Amino acid sequence: MNYEIEGFSMVETRKIEIQTKKHLDIIDITDKISDELSKSNIKNGIVNIFIPGSTGAITTIEYEEGLKKDLEIFLEKLLPYHAHYFHHNTWGDDNGCGHLLSALLKTSLTVPFVNKKLILGTWQQIIFFEFDTRPRYREIILQIIGD
Amino acid sequence: MNYEIEGFSMVETRKIEIQTKKHLDIIDITDKISDELSKSNIKNGIVNIFIPGSTGAITTIEYEEGLKKDLEIFLEKLLPYHAHYFHHNTWGDDNGCGHLLSALLKTSLTVPFVNKKLILGTWQQIIFFEFDTRPRYREIILQIIGD
Amino acid sequence: MNYEIEGFSMVETRKIEIQTKKHLDIIDITDKISDELSKSNIKNGIVNIFIPGSTGAITTIEYEEGLKKDLEIFLEKLLPYHAHYFHHNTWGDDNGCGHLLSALLKTSLTVPFVNKKLILGTWQQIIFFEFDTRPRYREIILQIIGD
Repeated sequence: MNYEIEGFSMVETRKIEIQTKKHLDIIDITDKISDELSKSNIKNGIVNIFIPGSTGAITTIEYEEGLKKDLEIFLEKLLPYHAHYFHHNTWGDDNGCGHLLSALLKTSLTVPFVNKKLILGTWQQIIFFEFDTRPRYREIILQIIGD
Repeated sequence: MNYEIEGFSMVETRKIEIQTKKHLDIIDITDKISDELSKSNIKNGIVNIFIPGSTGAITTIEYEEGLKKDLEIFLEKLLPYHAHYFHHNTWGDDNGCGHLLSALLKTSLTVPFVNKKLILGTWQQIIFFEFDTRPRYREIILQIIGD
Repeated sequence: MNYEIEGFSMVETRKIEIQTKKHLDIIDITDKISDELSKSNIKNGIVNIFIPGSTGAITTIEYEEGLKKDLEIFLEKLLPYHAHYFHHNTWGDDNGCGHLLSALLKTSLTVPFVNKKLILGTWQQIIFFEFDTRPRYREIILQIIGD
């Protein structure tokens, strides 16, 4: 009994890796997160999905091609790639739009799970938004908390 | 003593139910969440409020009629109901605007509590945003974590 | 051993305090959060950063002057200070724009930590956004959960 208490941890840090293709790329990361939960020792709790970076975001959508196109059009209109950004002056960069989109859509999302299964709607996926202006290899942190 | 440790769980999954009336409806869910916390065995921690769906959002506002009208006007201007959305081609649907708003405002919010009471400002309420284009019955998940 | 179990808490409530200067002020709160984590008894977990109020937001950005200017310009354009807001009718206030920005960017952010150190990108800071239209003294809640 004591062994079980000592041996149990309520926090597990895992990560998933993805390769993105372009600015405004949308990657469905639901299956990768589900895989990590199924390998975890924690049965019920929350998973905090976090991007250690400032040109991406995590949110949920119905992952289908029409909506992906709508999101791309809306976000490009809201914060156009070709507009002037003072951020470019700082680094000689071209990803000012992506920094603003990341600040707005945010780099963190927390999702509940029960019996190692994410609680999601039938038509709901967890997605990573690439807001940098070039393809990127991305590590996303999963902080799993529960018992 | 061992009994207490074995019997204690640091995770409780609860849910609340609401009926919404229309697109851009704003429902104050603070009291329903407070009720569930008061029935919980967990005294201090966080509650993750999560919508299993892709046409709603959770955030905090000062819940008063003027601001509700401002939010409705702002969000309708940002993503008009009558605009063209490629999502409509996929399903013959009319809720493309709602999917985009949900992606932007997000389906998850985490709020701290102490002594079973939410930590909120005096003029701050937790609200559900209906972004679907018809009335909906909604179940919202509360994942309560703490000790 | 039993003493350790009894004496250990997986939840710690801390707070940080800041003074803001103006509408759209951006304050880097990373170091203050890191300081609280280093004083905590919890080694691994998440910190939920929460504003008990409805005219601010928490997000992450690369904290540099060019981007701060870009954010200020973008948010002022999105929700101008001088526009008409029905919220003003309710209280005779002038901070309608700030309430809307807070609803959109949200008052809560959850960030993972390991070995008492925040997991952040090299160019990523946690920031408080002041959306009220006057300088404010702000208390921000840190709910630290882990083991």
